[in-house]
Amino acid sequence: MKKITVGALLFSMMFAGVNAQTLKSPDGKFEMDFQLKQGVPYYNLKYNGAVVVEDSKLGLRLFKDSAIKFASEIAKSEDAKFDLNNGFTKTDEKRDSKNETWQPVLGEKKNYINNYNELAVTLNQASSDRSIVVKFRLFNDGLGFRYEFPQQKNLNYFVIREEDSEIDFPTDMKAWWIVADYDSQEYQYQETKISEIPTRWDKAFDANASQSLVKNAVQSPLMLKKEGKSPLYVNVAEAAVLDYPASHLEVDAQNFKFKTHLTADRQGAKGYIQTPSVTPWRTIIVSPKAEEVMDSKMIFNLNEPTKYTDTSYIHPTKYMGVWWEMIIGKSQWAYSTAENVHLGKTDFTKLTPNGKHAANNTKVKEYIDFAAENGFQGLLIEGWNVGWEDWFGHSKEFVFDFITPYPDFDIKMLNDYAHSKGIKLIMHHETSGSATNYERWSDKAFQLMNKYGYDAVKTGYVGDIIPRGEHHYSQWTINHFYRIAEKANEYKIMVNSHESVRPTGESRTYPNYISAEAARGTEYEAFGGNNADHQTILPFTRWMGGSMDYTPGIFQTKLDYYFPGDKRFVKTTLVKQLALYVTMYMPLQMAADLPENYKKHMDAFQFIKDVAADWDDTKILAAEPGDYVITARKAKGTSNWFVGGITDENKREYTVDFSFLDKGQKYEATIYEDGKDADYINNPQSYNIYKKEITSKSKINFKMVRSGGFAISIKPIK
Amino acid sequence: MKKITVGALLFSMMFAGVNAQTLKSPDGKFEMDFQLKQGVPYYNLKYNGAVVVEDSKLGLRLFKDSAIKFASEIAKSEDAKFDLNNGFTKTDEKRDSKNETWQPVLGEKKNYINNYNELAVTLNQASSDRSIVVKFRLFNDGLGFRYEFPQQKNLNYFVIREEDSEIDFPTDMKAWWIVADYDSQEYQYQETKISEIPTRWDKAFDANASQSLVKNAVQSPLMLKKEGKSPLYVNVAEAAVLDYPASHLEVDAQNFKFKTHLTADRQGAKGYIQTPSVTPWRTIIVSPKAEEVMDSKMIFNLNEPTKYTDTSYIHPTKYMGVWWEMIIGKSQWAYSTAENVHLGKTDFTKLTPNGKHAANNTKVKEYIDFAAENGFQGLLIEGWNVGWEDWFGHSKEFVFDFITPYPDFDIKMLNDYAHSKGIKLIMHHETSGSATNYERWSDKAFQLMNKYGYDAVKTGYVGDIIPRGEHHYSQWTINHFYRIAEKANEYKIMVNSHESVRPTGESRTYPNYISAEAARGTEYEAFGGNNADHQTILPFTRWMGGSMDYTPGIFQTKLDYYFPGDKRFVKTTLVKQLALYVTMYMPLQMAADLPENYKKHMDAFQFIKDVAADWDDTKILAAEPGDYVITARKAKGTSNWFVGGITDENKREYTVDFSFLDKGQKYEATIYEDGKDADYINNPQSYNIYKKEITSKSKINFKMVRSGGFAISIKPIK
Repeated sequence: MKKITVGALLFSMMFAGVNAQTLKSPDGKFEMDFQLKQGVPYYNLKYNGAVVVEDSKLGLRLFKDSAIKFASEIAKSEDAKFDLNNGFTKTDEKRDSKNETWQPVLGEKKNYINNYNELAVTLNQASSDRSIVVKFRLFNDGLGFRYEFPQQKNLNYFVIREEDSEIDFPTDMKAWWIVADYDSQEYQYQETKISEIPTRWDKAFDANASQSLVKNAVQSPLMLKKEGKSPLYVNVAEAAVLDYPASHLEVDAQNFKFKTHLTADRQGAKGYIQTPSVTPWRTIIVSPKAEEVMDSKMIFNLNEPTKYTDTSYIHPTKYMGVWWEMIIGKSQWAYSTAENVHLGKTDFTKLTPNGKHAANNTKVKEYIDFAAENGFQGLLIEGWNVGWEDWFGHSKEFVFDFITPYPDFDIKMLNDYAHSKGIKLIMHHETSGSATNYERWSDKAFQLMNKYGYDAVKTGYVGDIIPRGEHHYSQWTINHFYRIAEKANEYKIMVNSHESVRPTGESRTYPNYISAEAARGTEYEAFGGNNADHQTILPFTRWMGGSMDYTPGIFQTKLDYYFPGDKRFVKTTLVKQLALYVTMYMPLQMAADLPENYKKHMDAFQFIKDVAADWDDTKILAAEPGDYVITARKAKGTSNWFVGGITDENKREYTVDFSFLDKGQKYEATIYEDGKDADYINNPQSYNIYKKEITSKSKINFKMVRSGGFAISIKPIK
Repeated sequence: MKKITVGALLFSMMFAGVNAQTLKSPDGKFEMDFQLKQGVPYYNLKYNGAVVVEDSKLGLRLFKDSAIKFASEIAKSEDAKFDLNNGFTKTDEKRDSKNETWQPVLGEKKNYINNYNELAVTLNQASSDRSIVVKFRLFNDGLGFRYEFPQQKNLNYFVIREEDSEIDFPTDMKAWWIVADYDSQEYQYQETKISEIPTRWDKAFDANASQSLVKNAVQSPLMLKKEGKSPLYVNVAEAAVLDYPASHLEVDAQNFKFKTHLTADRQGAKGYIQTPSVTPWRTIIVSPKAEEVMDSKMIFNLNEPTKYTDTSYIHPTKYMGVWWEMIIGKSQWAYSTAENVHLGKTDFTKLTPNGKHAANNTKVKEYIDFAAENGFQGLLIEGWNVGWEDWFGHSKEFVFDFITPYPDFDIKMLNDYAHSKGIKLIMHHETSGSATNYERWSDKAFQLMNKYGYDAVKTGYVGDIIPRGEHHYSQWTINHFYRIAEKANEYKIMVNSHESVRPTGESRTYPNYISAEAARGTEYEAFGGNNADHQTILPFTRWMGGSMDYTPGIFQTKLDYYFPGDKRFVKTTLVKQLALYVTMYMPLQMAADLPENYKKHMDAFQFIKDVAADWDDTKILAAEPGDYVITARKAKGTSNWFVGGITDENKREYTVDFSFLDKGQKYEATIYEDGKDADYINNPQSYNIYKKEITSKSKINFKMVRSGGFAISIKPIK
């Protein structure tokens, strides 16, 4: 030990001890130290004594005024004295803990456990006499923290220039990431070291209908892995993003450091805040086991319990849709050949039909018949309403009215027909990004839904947002998404939003907001394809804060079936499509292909018919980001289990150990596996189905082909 | 005559004759020539053979794409090929004319005459194969013209970079103008030559709650005068500004030229257009007589007739208000001492009252008593609803809910009380510029109005607009104002908007939109004062496209009455305040002072009680912009007349010739005039009232003191 003076010792004690607070997780394995270093707040994170996150800075930068105009014009250096990132002393400290069990309305397990120790430090900035609180919750699977702004004399309204919450890792790590963009998440995941992110960044995206990239920044949830003898998996995300913009992560590649980067509005402001207020939680989930990261419910735990008084209308929904045939180009959303229509003025009955309008009475009845016969709860129909002729790319504010059907869509007849068959139609509200227009029509649109017996709506936000200049993940737009969810609740309607912000656990607070797209889904198989490992990464990223409407189930994976010479194909085997229903948690669950394709493989389709969408239990049997996912789930209120396994671009063997089954019970397993000669490019539809009696002592070995999988449905033998 | 070659002659004929179209007014005094000069469109205007407007260019510049993002970043020179301002040939020409009489629902005369000759030229730009129409209407008082964009293969959607409609005057002229600003018109008028506008510009404005100035540009309506032996008065304005931004006028001071400058949105775009579409009309009203310019109904004539099926609920309204006492600072809009309130969360009954809340049950009943006793139809109450504690300056989107009263405002009791006295309350919807929030609440807000028997609302837009980045006069915000008017019509509610865009004749199409502020009104007497000539200019500018809610009638002009030492005062005599009820057309007509001040001058108040607000006839007896206005009006459905005269900072004599009265009829005139020793600064409340029997042969001479006036109410003696 070096010789140090007493003074230096005291000095370091002052800064290391007196101003430091330690928090431990309930099981003691995690430790977080908070400290002020010369008035600047830092936190860190240790797991089993080893540093996971080095001392990382916290703070925010503010604008001078509380109603800024055109931030780019008023960014002045003297604004720095308004920043809440330095000059602090700790004036208070409160500790708390919680260990509760709660039941999600729809979930992967019957019970979610919320168990943490909490530390809230109050920091006062003497120069401005303003106080903030930094609140930490340390769980047995990692850390969440947020800022709180109490209402006080000197802090009532402020505008955020940027939040600067850092996460400083001690070493390089493998990362699975997509480029940061204020308007889209529809990108292929990249697998690189943190240090390589800037090198890869420029090649990591293609065009998008609405795009505002942030160079050398990535989106969250972000998945990381410290490789080596004792691997550690780390997930960086956020929870409860409400009345605040979504955050991206700027990369300091050489220092393995990330920093929050909030979504701006057009003025360059990053949040208009009125106290008392709280920020979202910044979450860091950590485990030596990838499976445990995927299984974490931290993000949901950090959201508030719902205030809804009635959630009885919320139910899991298996559905089909008049949709995929438009995505691949076989038919159209639009009814007529017109290039330019004026809602409320154009007489659609006088337009020339294009002959390719999918949402017509005849076709919809066929879909209804098939979906109803096969036990689905819902049928989505896109293109039912006027306005599709010129819906995209013109910044047209009054683009849809959400209530006027096309001449060939008899809304009353079709709903009556569906109900007579025991199925509901699912409404479609494509907004074209015109959020102000959607808000104007939402009451009438939801009233129409109630009138005709729809209880679920898929919304869409394709294209730039109106109010022009707002982004998909700006504070204003996020408020819009939750205003719609709240209004839908008044009408007892479930919401599934596409091209919206990714959920960050809000299904706990808004349980009718049952799903969202908000990532690159199955439709992209027709728009360039998804990498073979895409579905092995999404559960570690997009799914962390809520279910995704991935819309799988494509049996006719090669599109040259429709268009000779077409090179597009869904980059998986047919069986992998089945497995996705288990490896992906989807309470709103689509069988996306055309009925004619299912009819040709009713034996394989049986799995989709049987698989549940709501669960009493989930076990991640094995998972490695970018490689494979093997999941088992127990259907709610039953003793039935489903198992799904998928692999990336590599063939892979996996032995399922059925010890999760009840002991002493016999089960019949129906197994769906890749055929021996199956190949996702050359022979995707080769599969093998067989039944087998199993018990908790059984094991079955599977040989997944590249981008293949297996699926098992298991029911007890009485 | 110079010797010219045949070729040169033919050449000039080609450009002067073959490509020129001439239009004349119905009485032949005006002539307009349209021509293409090397493919660029020009128009001019002549009156009695003399050039009023020299050949002036027309055209628009467009952006390349129809859904532009962040115009400032994509302004590229190659976009010029998308401009619609050159390369034209004339492909069609249509002529039309109209001579109709129509009745405004509320107006200055029973009948408005709409008489014009019309020329519509179709111009095709061969390089892009796009056609536009320029339509001219030549009236007996001047010219209106607009662009029309037919729906066509190559023109469906476009975004305007700028409209470049020029008005090129041959000589310098005197101009009465206010600075151009995308967000406010609350400025003092400047009187300078056109050539002097840039010199004066920087001194021509003070601060405003929402301000986005455009240097060296001015607003329209703009009043001009060519001085000299044969003076000519010219008014430059626009009509029917709908689904388009409002235009300002850039000044080329050395060439006495103006050019349209549209209000931008935050992206820098100046209009998102879907064809078929038309622009507003650009209007040029001309007369050797200033009175005839003021009297012109061209701007209303250029608007479309209303489609409203029921206008019976629309009526002239004389009202008082719980308002002026807040404006001067005697009381407050807010109820409590809180600095920061959350609608829907804050319990207002638990807050500490500030003791200055004007909109309380006791005071409101006192105002109701006085207003009802004195024959008013309505009482406006501001500050009745929760949210005023932090309503301004924080860009707070959910700033008001428009339905929750403060604890001391019993909405049911007060409305019942008012109705028992034969008066209605007038609703107040201050939006704080948060237009998206107002649209969200407008149905509930209007339902509340219907429930409690309100039939008129004053709206306000103090502060920057939300959607953030939009301006008060952007296309989006203008659409908002008319969406509100249309929705109000569904609920049979009349609208009076403050801080909104100035009307440009839309009361013809939206007759329930009965007034607006949209200029510097009486409240500014308490915020720095209005120049003594202000009210002699406004009828030539602000009033050209519609009535202004000027809110006059202040008897206690000096505010030191309330606050000893206060130097603020209303810069007119008391009698001038009376005269304003006639010189200003106000179908919604406020007596703005406190009842206690009227009680002290019930003899003068009698004029305000008697004056009508709706008219069968109006005669501008004499008017000179910036100097004086003398107006006579005949009350609707009666033989009663009212005369008002006002002067600027100069004392002035005027002799009223009563030849407008019916011949052979005796009338009793009650005359209100400045006292001999009256002075607007030192002795504003000195006045003289007397009665006199008059006939159409009578004349009366008035000696108005500086910023003084006279008012006469005349009724037939049976």
